[in-house]
Parts: sequence; C-alpha cells; structure tokens
Amino acid sequence: MDILHRIGIKSSPGKVYDALATREGLAAWWTNDTQGESSVGGTLNFRFHTPAGAEIGGFDMKVLELQPAERVLWQVIGGPGEWIGTRINWVLKQEGDHVIVLFRHLGWKEPVEFMHHCSTKWATFLMSLKSLLETGSGAPNPRDVKIDNWN
Amino acid sequence: MDILHRIGIKSSPGKVYDALATREGLAAWWTNDTQGESSVGGTLNFRFHTPAGAEIGGFDMKVLELQPAERVLWQVIGGPGEWIGTRINWVLKQEGDHVIVLFRHLGWKEPVEFMHHCSTKWATFLMSLKSLLETGSGAPNPRDVKIDNWN
Repeated sequence: MDILHRIGIKSSPGKVYDALATREGLAAWWTNDTQGESSVGGTLNFRFHTPAGAEIGGFDMKVLELQPAERVLWQVIGGPGEWIGTRINWVLKQEGDHVIVLFRHLGWKEPVEFMHHCSTKWATFLMSLKSLLETGSGAPNPRDVKIDNWN
Repeated sequence: MDILHRIGIKSSPGKVYDALATREGLAAWWTNDTQGESSVGGTLNFRFHTPAGAEIGGFDMKVLELQPAERVLWQVIGGPGEWIGTRINWVLKQEGDHVIVLFRHLGWKEPVEFMHHCSTKWATFLMSLKSLLETGSGAPNPRDVKIDNWN
C-alpha cells in the first residue's frame, strides 16, 4: 500500500532537487529541525515540534539514492512503527514550464488511520515545497498547515 | 489501490454531513457546477471549468449510501476511464472538538500518474471542505488550488 502524490513547480529540476537533497532545503519546507547528512549511505534526522516548542516525534531516513535533478530515495529507519522499513521515493521531470514531482511513500503494511493522516499531511508539505520554490517561502513545521487533531 | 485521506474539522457531524450530502454543500467546496440529486440511487454530476469558464471535464456519481452524520458512499459512473467503477467513501466520527473525516477513493486498477495527481488534488479539496466549515468559505472549482500542470 502506497501513498502517491504529484505536484508541478515552476522552477528548475536542479533547484527542486536541492530542496530535497540538502539539509537546508529540507528544513525550509518540511521541518525546521532537520539534522544529519544528505549523502548516499548517510542518515537524515527530522524532528517535529509544537508551536510552543515541545518535540512531538520524528523520522530517521537512510539516504539510498541521490541522482541530481532526477531522483531521491530514502528508507525509514527510525520513527513510528508503521513507517519503519517504508521507502520514500522522489522522481523529478520537466514538462513545459513545470518541474513535475512524483512522490511515493512505499510499502505501508496496512491502510491504518495513521496512513490516511500521513497521506493528507504529505500533500500539504508538498504544497509547502511548491510554495518555497515559487515564492521563496515554505511552511515547514512548526509553522505547518494543521489538518486534523493529530496535527 | 486506494487514495486515503484524513482531516479533522471543528464543526458538528451534521454540518459536515450536509456539506457532503447536499448539492449546495458540495458546490461550496468541490465544484460550483454541481448538478443532480443527492439521494440513494440518484446521480450527482460534477463539472469543472477553467477560471475563464471553459469546461474541462467532470464526474458522474451514483449515490449508493447516505447515513446522516455518519457516512456517504458514491460509485463513479461517468468521467475519466481510470475513475469508472471506483468508489468514494466518506466516514465521519467525532473526536473531542473535531469531526474526523476518513476519505477513501477505492478501487483504482493501476497506480498511474493521474492517480498521483488525484490524490494530491483530493487533499486540497478536503482542505477546502475544512475551510468551508470552519471559516464559511471554501475554494471550489474554478477557484480551486492549482497543484500542477494538469490543474
């Protein structure tokens, strides 16, 4: 069971790639608290906080592939049990004046309610990525869009 | 293969249900051009337009179930080939001060690129539904959030 999304960004493949493949880029649209190394074999550590600053968990990703301007692949090695072992695959391609981002969060074992939440939440973070590249300003945690009672 | 989403709305189950089970409600968050009958066995006709007014397709849904304040189920009987025969299932439940909406677009045959697009687009329409009920104003087509080069 996979979460799938598609967005188009008026930008260049290189700039979109940088927002997915560098710690600074990721911190500007997903979560301000992004640590670790974005290199093949390295680990990225994403942590989330309430607006008041309390930590509310996060994810550790092993970087499996980095193909500049084309593809990023992570494997989840830390975080909620439902996420462990899943993979997050980013594919970029140019279509006219848009960079198309095909996003896949692959390998969920069960369609649990948390998977429904994560699907919607990924969509809002992808719109944050689009906004970052098109306007210069994203909405990373803790300024992220709240979608439900789980945040 | 299914598209799954979860949102929470600060409203009542009855009001959220009305936004899913009446033509007027649906027109206020999904598409202004909503026609037909929201009754079991009836058909709803959703049409989408460019901001300039050109029609760009739509969907026809047979209403299979209507359980006030709890559930709505549609079957797609007209629209893009990938949608025909799929079902759209809405389940509502109260958790604290939120009405949780579990959304499932069930029965896609293949994880085509259009399914990725529709997943993200559903998320933005669900946020339109949330906004309608929490602020009084949704973002239905043609004022909908544009996510990519397919709209």
